[in-house]
Amino acid sequence: MSGTAPIAYSGEPGAFAEDALIAFFGTEAERLAVGSFADVRAALLDGRVQFGVLPIENLVNGTVRETLDLVRDGALEIVGESVVPVNLVLAALPGVVLDDITRVYSHAQALAQSEPFLRTRTWQLLSTYNTAGAGAAIRDRNERDAAAVLSPRAATLHGLVELASGIEKDPGNRTRFWVLRSTGSGAEISARSGAPRTTLLVGVRNEPGTLLAVLQRIAAAGVNMSKLESRPSQGGDWEYVFWMDLDAGAHDAALQGALKELAAVTSELRILGSYPRGAAL
Amino acid sequence: MSGTAPIAYSGEPGAFAEDALIAFFGTEAERLAVGSFADVRAALLDGRVQFGVLPIENLVNGTVRETLDLVRDGALEIVGESVVPVNLVLAALPGVVLDDITRVYSHAQALAQSEPFLRTRTWQLLSTYNTAGAGAAIRDRNERDAAAVLSPRAATLHGLVELASGIEKDPGNRTRFWVLRSTGSGAEISARSGAPRTTLLVGVRNEPGTLLAVLQRIAAAGVNMSKLESRPSQGGDWEYVFWMDLDAGAHDAALQGALKELAAVTSELRILGSYPRGAAL
Repeated sequence: MSGTAPIAYSGEPGAFAEDALIAFFGTEAERLAVGSFADVRAALLDGRVQFGVLPIENLVNGTVRETLDLVRDGALEIVGESVVPVNLVLAALPGVVLDDITRVYSHAQALAQSEPFLRTRTWQLLSTYNTAGAGAAIRDRNERDAAAVLSPRAATLHGLVELASGIEKDPGNRTRFWVLRSTGSGAEISARSGAPRTTLLVGVRNEPGTLLAVLQRIAAAGVNMSKLESRPSQGGDWEYVFWMDLDAGAHDAALQGALKELAAVTSELRILGSYPRGAAL
Repeated sequence: MSGTAPIAYSGEPGAFAEDALIAFFGTEAERLAVGSFADVRAALLDGRVQFGVLPIENLVNGTVRETLDLVRDGALEIVGESVVPVNLVLAALPGVVLDDITRVYSHAQALAQSEPFLRTRTWQLLSTYNTAGAGAAIRDRNERDAAAVLSPRAATLHGLVELASGIEKDPGNRTRFWVLRSTGSGAEISARSGAPRTTLLVGVRNEPGTLLAVLQRIAAAGVNMSKLESRPSQGGDWEYVFWMDLDAGAHDAALQGALKELAAVTSELRILGSYPRGAAL
């Protein structure tokens, strides 16, 4: 951990992104909540923060395309990853019981994620702009006939008590976050354990065998690829962009050699980061 | 088009899935609205419907993993695809103006998709379980201080008038749907134009070069791959499953030859369908 310069995440205190930040940097890390994924990038680039966390993959919903777009130009560098469970609870003021509830507040995404549970009652569902807003609405107005859907940590944070846990429709769901710094900033994280992973962005022309040529160079180096994702072509389909996770460090001699050869068969090639692998998604 | 046997989609009348169905089969096609993606599969397998539509890819959110899981076992076959725009409007009863509105109803996902627009006012946001519910709430109770967020066609369907259009936060967003039949059912669609596309499911062991071996066979056949997607390994990472779209018909001699060779280098290999390509996503 690196002193007191804050670490940016998108959302509000209690957000899953803050869970990921705490899991990686510890509870004592100074945090800066910003409004959007793009704001995390902006905070890194203007030096307000040393590190930022952005979601990259969710077990149920797959890759977070917006994050890929935000790192594509190479201005940010991946220095680590943090995987957190996506659990939701129904929580209310202390002393309130299920049968007291007539209204449930939460962010629209959390309401959608817990829809099967919520449908078991005839509650009125009210959307708030974040889960903190849901907790605050109940606490500030002392609403004893309302509950909120939020994470277990957010419930505690807002002084609410769990009435039902594990109400998400996808139990076991997890989200992988990247820990990012501004490229070349030199911001250092403490040593981590974990096998090396390197994330590459590769652009190839849409012709037979172009991706193959890329993978041949990687396989020839004896490097395993643990994820490969293509971006749908937005309009023109003359080029494809692939993100790939390789089970190797960028400074491994084998991968270094392969990267040199890749330049000849790609229209775009960028190392987005080389970092210790986190938990399996 | 194939007579009067209905075509299944998930959602309620006015849903984007119904847009996709109408775009493919025409407005006269008999439709069956079912509750979930799994219900579309069930309706196909028990013969209640000849065809079904399921979303497979969204420009903003990427691949719909649940649909991939529902076709993985080969019981359903892709026979076509339909790409529809994802537009949202704010609509209310005729005569109601923006300043009359105090409440907005919609499904949680649609509220989230139009959040930047909704934040420009201090409306109370109420979640309904589908957009039809939002339209019905307003119409049935003659609520002249409320509006709904829904698709342009759903607004018309429920007798509402648009107060603001294009309120989605991702303009230009589109969703690709697969048109499916029960494998071997022989249900026929009318002839379509469009270059051939074949979608394959390929499983490989997690060892260096295994995916490469697959792509080599495909490239050797001179076939272009237009999409490649890997599923995150759920727990064990000993095997990877890839979905790939190939620009060739499954009966092309070249692809046929490649498929025979693929059997030797894959742990799982399935043609999910061969069909005329739809519009670009």
